Amino acid sequence: MSLASETGKTGLVEGYHPLDVQTLPRYLGAIGTCAEKLGGGPDGWQVDEVGDGNLNLVFIVRGPSGSLVVKQALPYVRLVGESWPLPLKRAFFEQEALVTQIACVPERLPAVYHYDHEMALTVMEHLTPHIILRKGLIAGIRYPKFAEHIAEFMAQTLFRTSDLHLPAAEKKRRIALFCDNTELCRITEDLVFTDPYRIAELNRWTSPQLDGMAAAFRADAALKREAQVLKEMFMNRAEAMIHGDLHSGSIMVTQSETRVIDPEFAFYGPRGFDIGAVIGNLFLAYFAQPGHADATDDRQEYAAWILDQIELIWKTFQTRFLQLWEQEGHGDIYVAELFNDAEGAAVLADHRKACMQQLLQESLGFAGVKMVRRILGLAHVEDLESIEDPDLRAACETRALLLGRALIVNHRSYDTVTAVRHSAEKLQGGGEA
Amino acid sequence: MSLASETGKTGLVEGYHPLDVQTLPRYLGAIGTCAEKLGGGPDGWQVDEVGDGNLNLVFIVRGPSGSLVVKQALPYVRLVGESWPLPLKRAFFEQEALVTQIACVPERLPAVYHYDHEMALTVMEHLTPHIILRKGLIAGIRYPKFAEHIAEFMAQTLFRTSDLHLPAAEKKRRIALFCDNTELCRITEDLVFTDPYRIAELNRWTSPQLDGMAAAFRADAALKREAQVLKEMFMNRAEAMIHGDLHSGSIMVTQSETRVIDPEFAFYGPRGFDIGAVIGNLFLAYFAQPGHADATDDRQEYAAWILDQIELIWKTFQTRFLQLWEQEGHGDIYVAELFNDAEGAAVLADHRKACMQQLLQESLGFAGVKMVRRILGLAHVEDLESIEDPDLRAACETRALLLGRALIVNHRSYDTVTAVRHSAEKLQGGGEA
Repeated sequence: MSLASETGKTGLVEGYHPLDVQTLPRYLGAIGTCAEKLGGGPDGWQVDEVGDGNLNLVFIVRGPSGSLVVKQALPYVRLVGESWPLPLKRAFFEQEALVTQIACVPERLPAVYHYDHEMALTVMEHLTPHIILRKGLIAGIRYPKFAEHIAEFMAQTLFRTSDLHLPAAEKKRRIALFCDNTELCRITEDLVFTDPYRIAELNRWTSPQLDGMAAAFRADAALKREAQVLKEMFMNRAEAMIHGDLHSGSIMVTQSETRVIDPEFAFYGPRGFDIGAVIGNLFLAYFAQPGHADATDDRQEYAAWILDQIELIWKTFQTRFLQLWEQEGHGDIYVAELFNDAEGAAVLADHRKACMQQLLQESLGFAGVKMVRRILGLAHVEDLESIEDPDLRAACETRALLLGRALIVNHRSYDTVTAVRHSAEKLQGGGEA
Repeated sequence: MSLASETGKTGLVEGYHPLDVQTLPRYLGAIGTCAEKLGGGPDGWQVDEVGDGNLNLVFIVRGPSGSLVVKQALPYVRLVGESWPLPLKRAFFEQEALVTQIACVPERLPAVYHYDHEMALTVMEHLTPHIILRKGLIAGIRYPKFAEHIAEFMAQTLFRTSDLHLPAAEKKRRIALFCDNTELCRITEDLVFTDPYRIAELNRWTSPQLDGMAAAFRADAALKREAQVLKEMFMNRAEAMIHGDLHSGSIMVTQSETRVIDPEFAFYGPRGFDIGAVIGNLFLAYFAQPGHADATDDRQEYAAWILDQIELIWKTFQTRFLQLWEQEGHGDIYVAELFNDAEGAAVLADHRKACMQQLLQESLGFAGVKMVRRILGLAHVEDLESIEDPDLRAACETRALLLGRALIVNHRSYDTVTAVRHSAEKLQGGGEA
């Protein structure tokens, strides 16, 4: 697979052209596995463009025998337009990440049917009746298996792609590969860690209600320092292959099922960034709940369920990650042979716990920046955007911003995820952070 | 420049053959710049093989007009033999690193006259009358400019190749390039961080005097834990392009001059590894001094001079690195625009100091592992090896091991380099660590 023929900022490859509902059936008809899955012929296939993300085309294609999803990269940021070019090679990194994640924990990913490098296009399993977790959280639906499933996904991927498990040379080969996903990393570097803390053209927020808070954040040197400390971690720490965009819009759920999608931001980075994305987005959902209350449901119980999930995710992640490390820690750090007597085992067990503590703290810091950027930056979340009353929305957002700030500035001070839960509850109850 | 034609563990390229004193003149005669530099013709050039390192062939070639040095990689570890293959591509990484270092601080490197990828060979300036710093330290010679020069070399290279100065995409391109230097990194991973702490075939030490200490180190779980914490940093932290082997055998000096050579271990790693290599090797030289005392010189004043240099190197490095960060910190972390008011400037200045403090502590940890590996591992240093009386040598080595252990286990507790100096003096004076 050569990327050498790509040119310019968009990485346009000869042969690339974006498909649409008219041209897609003929394209799929030429691919045996896809045609077979759909059944019948291209003329009988129903195609819907459903992309509601920020970057790509997404089609659902239905035939007499079955359905599938086609995801194709566009050479620009869909949310912004052609003025913001973005390389098509991100489809390659998404495919690489997906294959790796499937190797780690197949039951939590969609199956992949076809990948076309020239067309920057992947054909994959149509997850149905799954819905995007974020929409479920807005609708107030409980997902009893979600916490366990997402914790397992993170434990498996963040363990198996790291020096705790991989030989050093294999890990370095993978770091090098993903270094070239630099344009997608750059989006995160700017939009998550920097822009919300300065005047930037694409920033927006609920105005005028949050004008003062936005200005206060831009003037908050201690906050900006810690946001940049987290950015340094994001840019310097090649710990594991991370999903890179693991918010509640990248997770699809049913009552019994959980699947992770859209890993195009994947690269070798700090583990805490994925964990923080999950936790931060759940806190956003939590603070949005008063905005979704109605006469029949004040959403208080549901909000508490969300906080339960945050605790459960961390605890399950920690348990599973430590089990994997103990049972399959054959990598090139914390070399097992060095700790194979009783004292060694005890010291290593202590160290693993200390690592988990540090990872929790870093994850909370990343959760904080992920929350703030969704309220003061370019890309917002439907949890809050769907609250129509701007005063009510601003009140929810203010509480979320206060927790986000506390997580960023004080992330090294939290000992437990329960302590953060209490901070969130106190804010929601109207108390001070 | 393609590395694709290389095959197997040694990375042998078609066209590669090791040169010797007979074949080298004809080779150089065909390279205009080299022939011109030497003057006359190949038959009149004097060639001496002088490689005393562990990995390569090194020749000095003298002609009527001038002289030059030829360094050629061998497809195995010279110190061990053909049973330990090592890829020739290390010459490529050495060349890449050398060019980068020259761009940062040209006056501290040898000039490069020619690079031949197929032959894994570099022709460079013959540094004369420079000698290897280690030999000067054994001979008890003071180098009044050395501390300032090596501090400047480290400040320039460790700043200019990092996210503090480079755009993110450029840094990622360079990380990816050096990821392929994995076999050389592996040598460090094994020989520095792991083998001295386990039974390994190639380990050796002054026996039987140090048998007990070696066994105690292998059983010391707290020590092994911290050595592996440092190894994790070495493998995960892509902070800057580091030299990777900056001991006193990689530095050539005169009374007024300092040059750094042999960067074949270069890759993107933690800054503290280079600083620790310099400091650790100076401490080894310090503890070796009683072994070089004679009737005319007890070496006490010279030993104190070495400790002065350690303090001076750290202080000068810190000052210069902070100056560079303040004046040229245009990179993608700690984005200048975020801190351009009075409070921001104060907070950023505080943070820079905190970074320096953390870097000192990490450097001391790395200094510790660099010391221990030179006494209990495969590759030893002439500072100690040249002490003929084994009891005297073992006494020197024991003190060095005790400081090394303290640096590894307690590196997060040291506030100043002066505090470490006092620990060293106490050990040398016969006190406890």
